[in-house]
Amino acid sequence: MTTPTAVLAFSGGMDSTTLAAHYARTHRLVLLSVDYGQRHRRELDAARQVAGLLGADEHHVIDLRHLGPLLAGSALTDPSVTVPDGHYEDETMRATVVPNRNAILANIAVGAAAARGAEVVALGIHAGDHTIYPDCRPEFLDALRDCVRVALAGLPIPDVEAPFLTWTKDRIAQYARDIDAPLHASWSCYKGGTVHCGTCGTCVERAEAFTLAGVPDPTEYLTPPPLVESTAAARR
Amino acid sequence: MTTPTAVLAFSGGMDSTTLAAHYARTHRLVLLSVDYGQRHRRELDAARQVAGLLGADEHHVIDLRHLGPLLAGSALTDPSVTVPDGHYEDETMRATVVPNRNAILANIAVGAAAARGAEVVALGIHAGDHTIYPDCRPEFLDALRDCVRVALAGLPIPDVEAPFLTWTKDRIAQYARDIDAPLHASWSCYKGGTVHCGTCGTCVERAEAFTLAGVPDPTEYLTPPPLVESTAAARR
Repeated sequence: MTTPTAVLAFSGGMDSTTLAAHYARTHRLVLLSVDYGQRHRRELDAARQVAGLLGADEHHVIDLRHLGPLLAGSALTDPSVTVPDGHYEDETMRATVVPNRNAILANIAVGAAAARGAEVVALGIHAGDHTIYPDCRPEFLDALRDCVRVALAGLPIPDVEAPFLTWTKDRIAQYARDIDAPLHASWSCYKGGTVHCGTCGTCVERAEAFTLAGVPDPTEYLTPPPLVESTAAARR
Repeated sequence: MTTPTAVLAFSGGMDSTTLAAHYARTHRLVLLSVDYGQRHRRELDAARQVAGLLGADEHHVIDLRHLGPLLAGSALTDPSVTVPDGHYEDETMRATVVPNRNAILANIAVGAAAARGAEVVALGIHAGDHTIYPDCRPEFLDALRDCVRVALAGLPIPDVEAPFLTWTKDRIAQYARDIDAPLHASWSCYKGGTVHCGTCGTCVERAEAFTLAGVPDPTEYLTPPPLVESTAAARR
């Protein structure tokens, strides 16, 4: 029996690194990262490193920088918008939303899966994403699956999976430890320095996940992230 | 009252040129063409020319050539696959299917519309596309609309329109004449020469549409396309 293939949306962050480690145990990996002109280009180096560590069959960095001006208005691609500090669930984090980004990437992954006859398309979305990114919610996954069934009629239809869909990020940290996912090589910071800043929303989210999970955090931060207790207090 | 904006998937072909002329009468135009490494790159020059003729506010040629190897297997992007001659509804035309292509492009258009607060996303799909491209069928449009509603929750949701969805291509040719769409500048041929080849599926389809519509065909063909009667006879 041949090993099945999984095509993954793969940012090189904590969630998708754990996702890739998860599928690496049972599937051949086709990892898709996107260069969409993000500030945190360090993320792409992390993605390449993780792909190597996991022995991926293919790792593509898809150059979507042309989409930057098209999708302008997000702090992630527009230099005129300041990356907000603070908790990742705050209203200010909406500035980091690139509209329809996940839908675009998921549909590229579906096309790549169809071209290879891959059995699975997998997304690393989790419960913590739902409040901020509408195209990371369970309803989106359902709608996407319907779209895929129609759009690929006549071809083998890959399963669209999101095994962490209902998980919190600290559960992902625990699972990453259990399966030895190379989180030390992953990258979360949105600010694009040489080490994690420790103050942007994604750094705070990352540090908080390790703390809540009781898992040692392998990340080097420029500024120590606020403790979970203090961020929780600040949000009350 | 300000003029509303329509974001169009725009190949520079006969259908999307007519679509752009249609919306140019009531909307500001944002036209999105894709360079996905297609052989018929002449199409992109046609798209630029038509965008200029129609006074589009924006015309973006999105460079998706990186997707070529990812979506390999189609005659449109893979040099090892021969572009089939013959009627566009034949089974051989399936070699020209880039899996999920329309879904990818539509979702990019949706993201661009969301970033601009555009009122409309429009696709030039028509009844003749349905048998060949599954992501051009009415069911796809319904599924896409559901996806968009979910993916853009919290933002203004653009209407996803496909005014030619149930039209035949000859009806598009008639409508193009009625609204003076610049079809002389449009490009259909999949073979990538300097004039339309006249023998590939899309050239046959183009010529047939003008003939059935009783509209003069402004196209220069290298080889005169077969008459409608003879292609119809060949398919019996």
